Order: sequence, then structure tokens, then C-alpha cells
Amino acid sequence: MTDERQLTAAGNEVSASFLTAKKLSDATLTKLEANPGAYTMLTGDRPTGRLHLGHYFGSLLGRVQMQERGVHTNIIIADYQVITDRDTTDRIGDNVLNLVLDYLAAGIDPKRTMMYTHSAVPAENQLLLPFLSLVTEAELHRNPTVKSEMEASGHALTGLLLTYPVHQACDILFCKANVVPIGKDNLPHVEITRTIARRFNERYASKKPIFPEPAAILSDAPEIPGLDGRKMSKSYGNSIMLSATAEETAKLIKKSPTDSQRRITFDPVNRPQVSALLTTAALVTGRDPVEIAEEIGESGSGALKQYVTSAVNEFLAPHRERRAELAKDMDSVRDVLHDGNAQANAIAEETLDEVRAAMGMKY
Amino acid sequence: MTDERQLTAAGNEVSASFLTAKKLSDATLTKLEANPGAYTMLTGDRPTGRLHLGHYFGSLLGRVQMQERGVHTNIIIADYQVITDRDTTDRIGDNVLNLVLDYLAAGIDPKRTMMYTHSAVPAENQLLLPFLSLVTEAELHRNPTVKSEMEASGHALTGLLLTYPVHQACDILFCKANVVPIGKDNLPHVEITRTIARRFNERYASKKPIFPEPAAILSDAPEIPGLDGRKMSKSYGNSIMLSATAEETAKLIKKSPTDSQRRITFDPVNRPQVSALLTTAALVTGRDPVEIAEEIGESGSGALKQYVTSAVNEFLAPHRERRAELAKDMDSVRDVLHDGNAQANAIAEETLDEVRAAMGMKY
Repeated sequence: MTDERQLTAAGNEVSASFLTAKKLSDATLTKLEANPGAYTMLTGDRPTGRLHLGHYFGSLLGRVQMQERGVHTNIIIADYQVITDRDTTDRIGDNVLNLVLDYLAAGIDPKRTMMYTHSAVPAENQLLLPFLSLVTEAELHRNPTVKSEMEASGHALTGLLLTYPVHQACDILFCKANVVPIGKDNLPHVEITRTIARRFNERYASKKPIFPEPAAILSDAPEIPGLDGRKMSKSYGNSIMLSATAEETAKLIKKSPTDSQRRITFDPVNRPQVSALLTTAALVTGRDPVEIAEEIGESGSGALKQYVTSAVNEFLAPHRERRAELAKDMDSVRDVLHDGNAQANAIAEETLDEVRAAMGMKY
Repeated sequence: MTDERQLTAAGNEVSASFLTAKKLSDATLTKLEANPGAYTMLTGDRPTGRLHLGHYFGSLLGRVQMQERGVHTNIIIADYQVITDRDTTDRIGDNVLNLVLDYLAAGIDPKRTMMYTHSAVPAENQLLLPFLSLVTEAELHRNPTVKSEMEASGHALTGLLLTYPVHQACDILFCKANVVPIGKDNLPHVEITRTIARRFNERYASKKPIFPEPAAILSDAPEIPGLDGRKMSKSYGNSIMLSATAEETAKLIKKSPTDSQRRITFDPVNRPQVSALLTTAALVTGRDPVEIAEEIGESGSGALKQYVTSAVNEFLAPHRERRAELAKDMDSVRDVLHDGNAQANAIAEETLDEVRAAMGMKY
């Protein structure tokens, strides 16, 4: 239900291939719940900025759940993806450490979940070479996400943007992940990863396959609109950052646009801004947005904003407290990353060794 | 002189850009001769087969010369380039070890020259990621060598074939090579390497450039035709392998085609097959092909082939003897490669570390 509404709201057609993917995803999830120890999950973020409330509900919570279930959880900070469509790595170090802070504050446990940057794992990156030989340029071009990212960037298509889905296959396959939680936009990435795994096994390891063909797990989390009803985006300034203070959050909500109708109603299509505020409040309180709207009624958008502000700040207070506590000892945060990188290197070197052996490249 | 004749014989136009490149190459060579210790050379081979007489004169001799001059010489065995346009790594191990055998037999000294396979150097391969972000897809497509290799392969353009010039930039730049001996077909590869070095320095290391812009050194070696007058190629079976026995060589020369004229004359345009035999004999004896032709005169192609056979076998005898001697202890040959790989890894890790620091990617 949630998912259908989300798709309708976004104006997307529910395609047959999406429905197939969703069915597969649900089936995988059922099997995973029955035997979580048989599953290795890979997911991650580009360190292009700070995480916001959308990330909290859309990915962080899900990762913690997977960890708690006993799935082998891996979180990659895809730092090379920062330069697929931009000319600078400005502030990248700050962004990376802030991601780790949010992971830890959200409940990711470095003893159970490997967190690392792919730039620190040469043996993983080397897989790009054999993997690039398994796909054609035409297949690289067919990826709709690459196209839309190029268009959004306003830059010429770089070699890295064109090939990054293959690099993402390295991210997923070096640790032999067999489940990848994604939003539906990233289905083509999982598809190319499956293709690469299959072709590698067929070509070089037909007797004893090296790579699993990972299954996509489609997120069930509702998409959270930005405070202005548009998509949450750093450039729109419409996102509630996990790392913001309560005061900054209050200020942001205060200046978010509403409409001239005094009575508050939940109507995402005709009143996207007011409804975005209601959705936000509903999420952090676990209440129904219609009920909140009725409660505020004629009190208007001022009252609504006050409600949203306290609800959000109350919800985020424990996360922000843990975050602030952790940030007092950044050396420990760096150690988490260094330990994750060391683990990732050990795994990547083992996989690369198998790959070299399968290809006859051990001399 | 030699060079002009070679170009005319190959039917190529001497383009303005080639002349510019040749002038730069000559200037570089003059500076290199004055101060060889200031130069680092990178050159190498794809391990797709055995080396032949064309390689001996076209590259091996020049590498030994560079080593003897005191240039820092590096020879890469580009094993990932084997799969740019083929679906198999069949016999790759054998090909790699036979390359090392020919290097050593030709006089390459592992104490002065680093020999290694790029598949053994993850930190070098990782440079592909930042480097791919510095070139556009349009630039990748503009490379004429990639186009002609794709056409020759009869395969769809793979991601690896499209991007291998960028990987070659990694091969060259990881050890900060500033000279690259090449045939003129490979000028675009050196050009893209220079572009990548320049852009990386401008974007991430403007205060203290990390990479040199390497200069191409165009080979002055005459192009040796195959025994049938066509280009030397494994698929034509017209090449004298360095690893062949004297008997195999005799057999190959015996069955090489000539023409119906009894009198032997050196006439590359009208009598390509007879002239190819004369060129081969001239090269290995250091004599003038016209003189050899006159000497044989009316004795015909049988006598010519006898002359070529003894000349080639005599010339290659010491190489083949050294080769056979070395092949008795393949463990030592492997050690040469392992030592080279270890050296290459140390250099690559240092360069990658500088690259990470310049990009702000040390966390």
C-alpha cells in the first residue's frame, strides 16, 4: 500500500519489470528472514554531503535492521563516485567522517558491520579491469541512471560516470554480497552486476563459480518529500540534516513555504507543501498524517510548523546526542574507518586472488 | 632516411602532426643522451603470444640500449590488455613467462630493469578510477587505435577496450615515466596520458604537480615485414619466433612464398616477398639488402632462402642458447617477475598515497 501510493505520488508508472523486481525482492526478503546468516548485504553512500531525515528512514534504519537480524552487513562509502560528475573532492574528508558519525549514532555497530571507503581498497578497484571486459559499451550506454545523472550534472559524460555501474559491481561482488537494498532507480545497477557475475563465472569459473548473482531488495520505506514538497535535495535547502542542531532545524522549518489556506488538511496532490510537513511529522511520531492535520485544523501553518519542529527535534534528540558524544573523539571514529578498510582489504585480496587463479593470471 | 623510406613503403602520408611528434621525440632523445639518469622509461608487451624478430629489432634492442645508457627502465607485461578484445586468457601464463625469458635472453638485467605484470599491482590499477574522471567519453572515442583494434577484433566494443588507453596512462604514470618509446600508431595513447597528467596536476596538485607529462620517443627501427612481405602477424604464420628452433626457422623460411623471377633483386614495391627475405637477411647481418641481392643474383630464391636461414639462425643462436639455459630454471624466471612485481607495488603504493593526499582522500 505504502509503495503504491508513493509511486502514484511520484507520477511514475508501475512497470511490469518493476513488479517482477518487487516480487523477487519480497521472495528474497522472506528467505533472508528465515536464514539471515546466509546473506551478505552491501549498501552505501556517496560522501557528497551530510545525511538527512530522508536517509534516516530510507536507508539507515533498514541497515540497522539487517545488522540486528544477523545478516553480514557492509557499508561502503563510495568516495570515487563523488568525481563521476564533479571536478572537485572539496570537503570530502569532512563528508566521509560525518557519514561514519551518523552510521554509528544510528546504531551501526562496527563489530558487526564493516564500514569503509572504496578508495582504500586497491584489490577491490582492480576488479574493474576484468569486469570492464565483460560488458560492451552499448550496455554501458543503456543504463538510464547514468543518462539522468549526466543530464543533471550539466557536464560532458566522463569515463568514470559511464563506467561507474561496473565499479559498483566491484563494490558489490568483492565481498560476494548476495543482497543489495536499493531504491527502484538503481535496479539497472543490480542488473549489470548480475550480468557481470554470471559472465565471469561462465567464462572463467564454470566449474566453481566465484561470484553470486546478487538480488535487489527494494526499499519499502516511504519516500519523504523535502519541506517544500519537492524532492529532498541539498541544493533546494529543504532537508532536515541529522547533524543539524535543534535551533537550525527550527529555523529551517519556520522558513519552509506553505499556502494561504488556514485550515490544515492532508492533500499531497493539491497541497504538497503543507502535506510534506504533515508527512514529516507523521514519520517521526509514527502517527497518521490525516489525524495530525485534523488535530491542528484551523490553527494554521504556524501551529503546524511548531508541531513539526518539536516532533522532529524530539525524535532526533537521541541520535544527535550520540553523534555529539562520538564527535568528541574523532580519532576513534577514524579508527572505525581504518578497521573497516583493513577488513575490506583482506576480503578484497582474497577475492582478487581467486579471480587471478580463475583467469590463469598467477605466474 | 630509414624512417622516410619506411613511411613511404608502408604507404602512409607523413602528416604534419607526425613530423611535430618526431621533432619532439628527437629533442627528447638528445636531452636523454646527455642526462639519462633523469629519465624513466615505460614500455612493454601484451602477452598474447611469443616475441618474433620484429620485436627483437623493433623494441627489445632499444630497451637494452636504454638500460645500458642508465635510464630507469621499466617493462610492463600488460596482461589485462589480453582481454580488451578477446574472451579468453588461454595460455596467458605460458606467454608471460616466455616474455620474461626473451627479455632476459636479450640482455635485460633485472637488477637495473623492473619487469612486472600489471595484474599484480592493485595500487596501479586503482589509478584508473581518478583518471577516468579526467577524460570524457567523446575523448575516449576519438582514439583511432581503439577504433582499429575494435574493427580488427570483429567483436563489439568492450568497456575495457574503450578505456584501455586510460589504463595505459596508469601504467605509464604510476612509476612517473617521462619517456615512452612507441611506434607512431601509439601516439594517441601518449597524448591521452599527457592530457590526464596535466588535468590531474591542474585539478588536484597545482601547487606541487605529481605526474610528469611523458614524451613519446618514436622508434627509428625499420619495420620488418613478415616473410611473405605482409605485416608480421601470428595469424599469417610469417614471423620468425625468437623461441623457435633452428630447424623450425629453416622450415618456415623454406615454405615462404617468392615469385617466378630467377634473378634476385631488392625491389620492395614490385617484389615484396623476395625483398622481405632480403630485408630480414640485411637486418641480421647488418649488410645492405641490395648488396645481398647482387651477391645471390641468378642463383634464385632457393639460394636466397638458404642464405637467410643461416644468417637468421646464426644471429639468433646466442639469444636462443641463453634462452634455453634460462628455461632450465623456471623458478628463477618466476622470481624475476615476483621481484619486479614487488618493486612495482612499492612504487605504485607510494604514488597512490600521493594521489590520495592530493585529492583529500586520506581520512
